[in-house]
Amino acid sequence: MLSDTVRLTAEPPVPAAREWAARWTGPSPALDLTQAAPGYPPHPELLERIARAAGSPEAARYGPIQGDPELRQALADDLAETCGARISGHEVAITAGCNLGFAMAMKVIAAPSDNVLVPVPWYFSHQMALTLQGVEVRALPCRAADGFVPSVAEAESLLDPRTRAIVLVTPNNPTGATYPPALLEAFLDLCERRGLHLVLDETYRDFLEGEPHGLFRRPRWREHLVHLYSFSKAYCVPGHRLGAIAAGAPFQAQLAKALDALQICPARAAQPALAWAIPGLRGWRAANRHVMAERAEVCRAALSGVAGWRLEALGAYFAYLRLPEGTPDAAEAAPLLAERAGLLCLPGPFFGPGQERHLRLAFANADAARLAELPERLSAL
Amino acid sequence: MLSDTVRLTAEPPVPAAREWAARWTGPSPALDLTQAAPGYPPHPELLERIARAAGSPEAARYGPIQGDPELRQALADDLAETCGARISGHEVAITAGCNLGFAMAMKVIAAPSDNVLVPVPWYFSHQMALTLQGVEVRALPCRAADGFVPSVAEAESLLDPRTRAIVLVTPNNPTGATYPPALLEAFLDLCERRGLHLVLDETYRDFLEGEPHGLFRRPRWREHLVHLYSFSKAYCVPGHRLGAIAAGAPFQAQLAKALDALQICPARAAQPALAWAIPGLRGWRAANRHVMAERAEVCRAALSGVAGWRLEALGAYFAYLRLPEGTPDAAEAAPLLAERAGLLCLPGPFFGPGQERHLRLAFANADAARLAELPERLSAL
Repeated sequence: MLSDTVRLTAEPPVPAAREWAARWTGPSPALDLTQAAPGYPPHPELLERIARAAGSPEAARYGPIQGDPELRQALADDLAETCGARISGHEVAITAGCNLGFAMAMKVIAAPSDNVLVPVPWYFSHQMALTLQGVEVRALPCRAADGFVPSVAEAESLLDPRTRAIVLVTPNNPTGATYPPALLEAFLDLCERRGLHLVLDETYRDFLEGEPHGLFRRPRWREHLVHLYSFSKAYCVPGHRLGAIAAGAPFQAQLAKALDALQICPARAAQPALAWAIPGLRGWRAANRHVMAERAEVCRAALSGVAGWRLEALGAYFAYLRLPEGTPDAAEAAPLLAERAGLLCLPGPFFGPGQERHLRLAFANADAARLAELPERLSAL
Repeated sequence: MLSDTVRLTAEPPVPAAREWAARWTGPSPALDLTQAAPGYPPHPELLERIARAAGSPEAARYGPIQGDPELRQALADDLAETCGARISGHEVAITAGCNLGFAMAMKVIAAPSDNVLVPVPWYFSHQMALTLQGVEVRALPCRAADGFVPSVAEAESLLDPRTRAIVLVTPNNPTGATYPPALLEAFLDLCERRGLHLVLDETYRDFLEGEPHGLFRRPRWREHLVHLYSFSKAYCVPGHRLGAIAAGAPFQAQLAKALDALQICPARAAQPALAWAIPGLRGWRAANRHVMAERAEVCRAALSGVAGWRLEALGAYFAYLRLPEGTPDAAEAAPLLAERAGLLCLPGPFFGPGQERHLRLAFANADAARLAELPERLSAL
């Protein structure tokens, strides 16, 4: 007999969508915009450094539970520079990917039958991890009319005594919406007022210009803010599975237990190289930010020319599209697009309730030339 | 406010013990027998292959949720050869370390307020992971008089309708006891009779001669057996964080959801090298098996000569020692041994209730010359 929590958890979405690709028999290669994977390779010096460390006996040994001190410090310094944080390396833990980081952070915050607020559409791995933990995922609706940005007042109306946290992802997955700094401040105010944690996943923050928000400048940020980060997107190394959690020392002390039990230590091969890359590849990251901004514009232009389709949000990595009137719902449209046009994307229902008319396109995966194929492929529906 | 489940979880044991090392001011280097880390380096060709893969753009990309097909197949073939299993690569999932594998397997099996039977002394990470999941850890006592091997009848007497699994580790951590094949058969019989899963952690199986048990030869093994494996010990690569779960297809289908939500994919750098090493380093593993057997004998001989100390179990990687009468309890004795003799080991209470008079020595960490220091260091207590 298998546990209900796992049986009620959704099937892995990306492999499901990839299977549709087999239905495409057209002459051109399929355009795969399913998984949020950077469409350009890692920097060659980063790869060289990873290879060098990976081949050492040191990388084969157990490392510190919360990751290499050099990497923790480098990320703390980066948070100081990009977000104005005064933060020590001890307030950063390196995790075996940002998803494990999210699950472990939520373990610290919420127990079974507690609930947390998550804006809809949501990142499906968040919903899956919480469901697995027996934590109720309470939907905070976002609307196209508001640019898919959640409302603080609506969030407050959904709180009850079992609510432990509000989870925000900005720039957002799946919509690409970037939350304004004032909104993030207001959410942290709410969390302070109501004794909750604000769990802020900023996996895509390197693709923003300027300071993303001033939350780390608040003197009491450690009491209610938990920041999640991923090295996968900014450094193009998802296969090395490294993420991070910035939080105050009391939170880190509890988190260390969860990390010790589940990750023991994060995989070591890429850690020294990333500690170098945080300052060392600043210019390269800035250049990629421009590439992404260009792709976003190409994507916007391409999508504006397709009759009936509405681009309802776009940012950092993702475009969130509304299907034309009269077409089948997303659950049917997504496989049809794969079959008829070799376009792979994820249907809205993977991202929560009420998303039947939407598709997520991870445009970051493809270069400008390939993104220009979008109108023709979409028209095939 | 932080969750009770995490607050009630124990502190990470190994760092606690490592801190005692600072108290040693003697002339010789401390003898660190805390963590189960192989005391010899990985094979040079394995390291070369890891380096080569780690530096490739491919290893930086997302991989399959359950790991590289080549590694899954190689481990299936190894289980066929060592355990007589008829098993396909689809029945093996690669995990981000065996600890994450254990936690995810238990997620599939047990929900909060279910219980599982775990022999005491237990592997603390198992207890921590289950506590974090809100699953009750029900202690199945093991006694020195029985060679620290649990009793099937006693296990059966502890079952209730909320029991979902029995977790066995053989060769055992912390005692080193190796469970006889007939005992394992009887435990699987019990699990079949009562509709439970037998979760069998065989992290140390490569250090045994011959077939460890015949469970995989049973035609119905897929219905009740879940086998856990780690690459950390046999291949000396704990820093690369790779483990595995062998189980039937319906179990794997549910497991894939948990793995997708938490690991996304296992770290990729070492996977191709390990797929090569499973057949390629068979001879090297056999040689290490002999080295370990020699260390065990050196350890046994060294410990037999120390007045008052009783070696109550020994195997694969660990020796489980009983403190002499009249000495302080283990919680006090372990830091004293660090301070007075530079000997680092873990006190029994880290491994569960009733272990106040025991110490675990991970003798595999040290070569024969260093193990010969044990009598003098222990005498300092």
